[in-house]
Amino acid sequence: MRRSLLQAAAAEFDDRGYAGATIQGIADKLGKSKGALSYHFPSKASFASGIVEAFYRQVPAIVEPYREDGSFGIGSLIAVCLEVAQRFRDDVMVRAAVRIQREAKVVEIVLPTPYIDWLAITEVALRGARERGQVLPGLDLQATARVLVSGFFGTQQVANDLGRRVELVDWMVDMWRIVLPGIVGAESQTVLEQAMDRVRAHSAQNTGESASEPA
Amino acid sequence: MRRSLLQAAAAEFDDRGYAGATIQGIADKLGKSKGALSYHFPSKASFASGIVEAFYRQVPAIVEPYREDGSFGIGSLIAVCLEVAQRFRDDVMVRAAVRIQREAKVVEIVLPTPYIDWLAITEVALRGARERGQVLPGLDLQATARVLVSGFFGTQQVANDLGRRVELVDWMVDMWRIVLPGIVGAESQTVLEQAMDRVRAHSAQNTGESASEPA
Repeated sequence: MRRSLLQAAAAEFDDRGYAGATIQGIADKLGKSKGALSYHFPSKASFASGIVEAFYRQVPAIVEPYREDGSFGIGSLIAVCLEVAQRFRDDVMVRAAVRIQREAKVVEIVLPTPYIDWLAITEVALRGARERGQVLPGLDLQATARVLVSGFFGTQQVANDLGRRVELVDWMVDMWRIVLPGIVGAESQTVLEQAMDRVRAHSAQNTGESASEPA
Repeated sequence: MRRSLLQAAAAEFDDRGYAGATIQGIADKLGKSKGALSYHFPSKASFASGIVEAFYRQVPAIVEPYREDGSFGIGSLIAVCLEVAQRFRDDVMVRAAVRIQREAKVVEIVLPTPYIDWLAITEVALRGARERGQVLPGLDLQATARVLVSGFFGTQQVANDLGRRVELVDWMVDMWRIVLPGIVGAESQTVLEQAMDRVRAHSAQNTGESASEPA
């Protein structure tokens, strides 16, 4: 129940943004009355927080399959980035969560500070990459994490605002192609292709089971 | 007059965002009545458009000093990026213009599509760089322009949202340090340092005359 309400709310926020969305619009998508929603979600802001929380709860499950020998390396990082881009392109819950976060400052709902978690995950993976000797000596890991997270959010936003979301995964690949020589050096082409193969293998493996999450 | 009204409006939008800003707030900053503003700017949206237009009118003047032998190359591109970052950090008109554009979709004022002009400028500079033999053979210029513009906007947004705007110029330098090896190859360090020198020289030259734009 809670999940199907959030799904309908996500479609409403994805269509109309936080400011444009209404509880009535969510109720219409479900074919229910407004009153029927208010037990679980008493306000528009509570729907918005529910969607953002659901997104952050997904993160460990997105990251987990991409460990390399138990921890994270540069290949993990690329794979997770492409996987999240794919979900943003295809999954209305992810799109709504991103849009709500982007609009949060404008509409003054309180949400966790964005970027912080992604910066931390990225830095952990870069540290793993350094331990494996995958990155260039002397690389500033904190600055690199910032460049990658900024590039990721920027690319997502440009693709979205220009109405070219279907190309998002390809655009992320372009980003990696350009930044990797400055991170791993001469191995960049191989590193990128291996990570792309892992995402493809993981997607193929999950086809058919993706819609069966518990309600 | 028009300029001082826009300046006060910029401070209001920079403080409170488009949704939070009020005509009364702008009038208070000027010590005038609301009625006194309405001849030039009849609505909040007209202030917002005025600020964004003023920003885009500045662009040619920002870009111009960084021609290399009459046209644009990779060094021009880096220098312009650092110069705009500096203005975003220090100039309330630029900050307000960026914030209004970011919030435009949310508040439903109609503005020029963002990014388009910057993508075009960047691609021109990359083409100039290719003609000079400054970039790696086979580089996809359109994709590279996209990566750079996305990185620029993403970095600006992350710095702003994390309350670390004072570090923006340094963060842009970090971005260039990481992307340049994938764009120019082994020369990256030299190319970056030369561009930074040009921005410093240009800033030094302009000190003292910066506030004297016509009203």
